[in-house]
Order: sequence, then structure tokens, then C-alpha cells
Amino acid sequence: MPVEPTERGNETHRLLGRVGSDMQHEQEVVVLRYGHRPGRDDRMTTHVGLTARALGADRVIVPDNATQSAETVEDITDRFGGPFEIEQSDRQLAIVRHWEGPIVHLTMYGLPVQDTEADIRESLDSGPLLVVVGGKKVPFEIYEQATWNVGVTNQPHSEVAGLAVFLDRLFEGRELDQEWPDADRHVIPKAAGKKVVPADEFESETRRTDTTDDTA
Amino acid sequence: MPVEPTERGNETHRLLGRVGSDMQHEQEVVVLRYGHRPGRDDRMTTHVGLTARALGADRVIVPDNATQSAETVEDITDRFGGPFEIEQSDRQLAIVRHWEGPIVHLTMYGLPVQDTEADIRESLDSGPLLVVVGGKKVPFEIYEQATWNVGVTNQPHSEVAGLAVFLDRLFEGRELDQEWPDADRHVIPKAAGKKVVPADEFESETRRTDTTDDTA
Repeated sequence: MPVEPTERGNETHRLLGRVGSDMQHEQEVVVLRYGHRPGRDDRMTTHVGLTARALGADRVIVPDNATQSAETVEDITDRFGGPFEIEQSDRQLAIVRHWEGPIVHLTMYGLPVQDTEADIRESLDSGPLLVVVGGKKVPFEIYEQATWNVGVTNQPHSEVAGLAVFLDRLFEGRELDQEWPDADRHVIPKAAGKKVVPADEFESETRRTDTTDDTA
Repeated sequence: MPVEPTERGNETHRLLGRVGSDMQHEQEVVVLRYGHRPGRDDRMTTHVGLTARALGADRVIVPDNATQSAETVEDITDRFGGPFEIEQSDRQLAIVRHWEGPIVHLTMYGLPVQDTEADIRESLDSGPLLVVVGGKKVPFEIYEQATWNVGVTNQPHSEVAGLAVFLDRLFEGRELDQEWPDADRHVIPKAAGKKVVPADEFESETRRTDTTDDTA
């Protein structure tokens, strides 16, 4: 599906590459899950990883002790496709310190996403973007290292919700149309019910026309 | 802060009421968390409730067995403000069956949110909107009762992420500017650091000018 021209001009992120436009070069969007308490945070960290994948990030870095979450995200990527990378690291503060590109830290104390998103989008040309998603006890240095501390509202809610709204706004909805070329199965959108087809049958399905099919 | 005029015309939802425009009448937006496994789902259900509150819904209904989540959402609402209602019910299927207004069921098998959101927004005039957010094992009847089964992508990710993107799109970002008149504290957006003020000091703070304050 063709993408509408946008003010971004020569798109750098691979999203547009995926959906058919010319891709000039690539700048990664990487989500860093900062902090993880095994057991208690397993599902939240998993959901951070799955949300990063589904909504257009290229890579997620989770803590060393989040192996179960990393495996779940890996498993979903194997089945539903990529490209998407999952990494584990115990050097999260060092990654932030040495990141060569803009850094967004999502926090309820930050500046409104609606006031910062355009500048952040523009910065995508300048280097890979790191998006830090905190769990408990993010050290103050993260606030200092961040190019932008960004709040999706200044209310307490969910790091998963904040990440989702941030990515949807960053990519201006284009991530919703991305394709998953190496999936081994595809979900076909339906007005009611569930339809999943193996990859080798997917080419013969016409996604958009199928969406009016009510015969679930 | 004044709200830009929108294509919705005579706004019905209380969001515009909150931020200063004339409110003609009210139609609720209610989130129903379908299914809950105590222990395992506590944080996800809590995050569904907090996301519903932060991103503009009027009310959340969680299962009878999600008392801990309900209490957390209640506590946040007491401190950070409303209006927002939290209810518990063990008759979730009955609520869906007898709902007098449009129903959205968020599911990875549904129609693309980007293709359905305009129609759903228009339906807000016709009655209160129920947004069903499933946990595991949503019965097929929910797919049938829904006016729209809606997918925020057709990828597996997070019901919290899906709800967040859905609400942000439904309200076209206006929920990010909503006010919380009965809060006992307010977070002041900052470029770096954390600033929280008691409600009685909030009036003297100028939110928007403060956002350029770098002295954290």
C-alpha cells in the first residue's frame, strides 16, 4: 500500500521502506526497557517489547534478567515476522551514556508529547533514536542524558500505553500499515471472528477487500 | 486552554467540557475489561484502568475479582483527580448484551483502527460508547455483539497499548489537554526532573510557560 507523501521528505526510517517508498538510508528506532524485576515485571516487559515490535520500532533492548520476556518477543517475531531485533543487556545506563543519536525518555514528568513530537520526528534524520521506557527507579542521570523527557499526559498510567501513543505519533500512523515479509502466518482483518492464514496463502488474500467480508 | 474547533461540531463527550468549550450534552466512553485472572493479570488490569482514566474515558468496569486493580485506580483518581469512575461487575457479558449504544471490541483480528476510527467517532453522538478490552478467552459472542471489532495492527502486542492508541485516535489528541479539576496534586511538565505541586499552588503555576524551565 502506497504511503502518502509527508513533510518528512526523504524518509530515513525503514518503515517507509517496508511499505514501498524509496528508502534513502536507515536510522534505527530502538526501545530500551530500563529496569526489570523478574516475576513481577515479566508481563509488562514483554508487552513493552511486543508493542515496540508491532508499532514500528526496529529493536528492543531488555535487561539481562528479563530472559522470559525476551524469549516471548523472540517467539512472536519468529511466527509473525520481522524485521525486529531483541537484545538483552546488563549495561543499560552505559547504553544511554554512549548513545550516538537523540534520546527520548518517556516519563509522566516530562514535556507534553503533543508539543515535542515534531522536533523528535525531525531528529530522526540525525541519528538512531533511543526511546527509554522506565520501570521503577529510573536514576536522575537518565533525565539528564535524555534529549527529551516526554510525557504522554502528566498522569500516572502505563509505560506500555505511553510507548504506544508515542510511537503512533512519531510515525504518524504509518506503522499501522507496515508489512511483515518474513512472517510464517498472517492475520486477515475481519469485521467479526478470527482469520489467520499461512504465509504461502497470504499473497492470494487481498487484505483490504477482505475487510468488508462479514461471513465470520 | 481553548480547544481548536473540530469537525465534530457540537461536541458531546465531556472532554471538551473539561477544557472549556460549550458542552451540549454528554455521552460516556466506558472501558470494559473483559476477564481477569487474580495475581497473574493484576498489573495489566490496573494499567487498563489507569490508561482509560488518563486518556479520556469516563469510566472503567473491571471484573468482580479484580479488587486490587480497582483499588489502585481508585487511589490514583483520589490523588490525581477525575472525574473518573471505577466499577466492578461479575456480569460482563450481560453488560455487553444490554448496552444501549455502539460497542467497540479491541482485538488483533479486527478491522484496522485507521479505517474505522472516523465512523466510531461519529457514533459518539448516538449513545454511550463501550470499549471492550479482552484478557484471555473472549467468547465469540463479544465479536458478534460488537458494532466494530477493531485491531490496532493485526499483530499480537498488548491490550494496554491497543487501548491507548485507540483512545488517542478517538479523541484526536484532545485527551492530552484535559484538566483534572479535583486533583489534590498536579505534575508540572519539565524538560528534566520532576515537579509536583499541591492543588492549591497549581493555579499560580503557568503550565505552558513552565515547560521551558530547565532548572531541574
